[in-house]
Amino acid sequence: MTDSERQTDLLVVGSVAFDSIETPAGSVDNALGGSAIFASIAASYFGRPRVVAVVGDDFGADSYALLEGRGIDTRGIQKVAGGKTFHWKGRYHDNMKDRDTLDTCLHVFADFDPVLSPLLRRSSHVFLGNIGPRLQAQVLDQVEDPRFVGMDTMNLWISNALPDLKDVLRRVDVLFVNDDESHQLTGERQVLNAAREILELGPEYVVIKRGEHGALLFGNGLCRFVPAVPLSRVVDPTGAGDAFAGGFMGFIAGAGEITPSALTRAMRAGSVMASFACEAFSVGGLAAGDPAEIERRVAFLESMSA
Amino acid sequence: MTDSERQTDLLVVGSVAFDSIETPAGSVDNALGGSAIFASIAASYFGRPRVVAVVGDDFGADSYALLEGRGIDTRGIQKVAGGKTFHWKGRYHDNMKDRDTLDTCLHVFADFDPVLSPLLRRSSHVFLGNIGPRLQAQVLDQVEDPRFVGMDTMNLWISNALPDLKDVLRRVDVLFVNDDESHQLTGERQVLNAAREILELGPEYVVIKRGEHGALLFGNGLCRFVPAVPLSRVVDPTGAGDAFAGGFMGFIAGAGEITPSALTRAMRAGSVMASFACEAFSVGGLAAGDPAEIERRVAFLESMSA
Repeated sequence: MTDSERQTDLLVVGSVAFDSIETPAGSVDNALGGSAIFASIAASYFGRPRVVAVVGDDFGADSYALLEGRGIDTRGIQKVAGGKTFHWKGRYHDNMKDRDTLDTCLHVFADFDPVLSPLLRRSSHVFLGNIGPRLQAQVLDQVEDPRFVGMDTMNLWISNALPDLKDVLRRVDVLFVNDDESHQLTGERQVLNAAREILELGPEYVVIKRGEHGALLFGNGLCRFVPAVPLSRVVDPTGAGDAFAGGFMGFIAGAGEITPSALTRAMRAGSVMASFACEAFSVGGLAAGDPAEIERRVAFLESMSA
Repeated sequence: MTDSERQTDLLVVGSVAFDSIETPAGSVDNALGGSAIFASIAASYFGRPRVVAVVGDDFGADSYALLEGRGIDTRGIQKVAGGKTFHWKGRYHDNMKDRDTLDTCLHVFADFDPVLSPLLRRSSHVFLGNIGPRLQAQVLDQVEDPRFVGMDTMNLWISNALPDLKDVLRRVDVLFVNDDESHQLTGERQVLNAAREILELGPEYVVIKRGEHGALLFGNGLCRFVPAVPLSRVVDPTGAGDAFAGGFMGFIAGAGEITPSALTRAMRAGSVMASFACEAFSVGGLAAGDPAEIERRVAFLESMSA
């Protein structure tokens, strides 16, 4: 393993999707999305993440080119011949936060059976994107000696697969949830209490994502906050949470030691990536980030608390 | 004017009320409240504010004692013989944010005609709490040479008295509003755009209060954020916004020069005062703050962004 591989040793598992989305700002059809896509592109600004996912025949050369152009290792993406990629159709309300799912077609995702290559099994950092907890566990089982594991989830799994979810939760270092999910998971409305209860379920840290209101990190006696980057235009918030987690995990994978300062900077990296994700449909905003603009937004977030 | 008077030269005008409130945490009847009360108690931790308000016979010695015990100058409180103090009755939803007004009795407030004493006219700092904009203007007209003026408002005045409100807005240094009010005032949903539009209406700064999500300050090229203090128990959020503004204005009145750092520290003072306000019904939490606990919470807010 070269130094460069070692430094950027983040495995990202999650969904790959083609999304059809309506927001107050417009609409898009069959556009690249999914938790693995948003998270790995966000992480790619801090290293060379490796994606584990499943796609169909419709996942074409342009999609591979986009990911590989960002330095993402796509060898863990299984392509099912004759299959179709997961499809999600949704519509956002005027508040750009609430949304209705109009259609979900699992397609090849229904039979996703992730098998990791020897290289992927040696990943030091793992991000378990938002897929069912049994799949998350199946991936984690195959990683030989993970040093830091992040996990995302959603209301569906909290409702339908809580025992499995709790099993995974005991094995991860950080859980990413939003306010509603933290409430659903713990019954606690106050974020401080919800965070405490989640930490008792196993993870060392929990990050509570709050959309335009930023995010909080709790754990190891720390309480850290990062604002959202104020944006003059939000086009589509889809994937912002995945981008936050991907930026956070990518930063941590590149940072080496987990210090309070590294966690704060990881939160800023996540917040900046989420801001890019919101500025265009699909991965248009996220894939167009550049180091100078990232640096500018990170500095802006710092200045907001100066 | 003594040095001590000069340093703490904050005039606070607003409502004094007896509130009957139900929240998921319990209920209280005819408890001391109102914007002038919450704001002046919050400001009292940073100086000796002077209150201008109107009350009825039912505003008793215990209420005066509470305010004067906190060093608040109550000589500007007009007591109307035979009158009753403003009464508000409300019920909060489970989210501790939305609320229904069940009853409003203006009583003596209906004829509030603030006339400032010579001492009050020489106030250098003024906080125009949430009362009708014409009353706010009437108070401001009497202050000879105000150095820094803060203004609060609410949805009612934005709907019913917008021209008057805009007249006052042109004359103040900082406006305090919440997210919904900023949207209502400007038609802009994105906080960045709403803030820009508000700044074009006159004030040098605008503070957007976001409850448990903290607050943002914009103006003079600055964008500053302060988180809310995470609380394990919220009893009653009534007055938290007034307490934020009072803490902010009290800090600024004591700080002298308006520097970016003073503004950040004023935001933290506001956030800490709002946290006290939420921890008990009426002024129970706010009046029980002590310097050591204030210092602890300010340090905690600082550490959240470290």
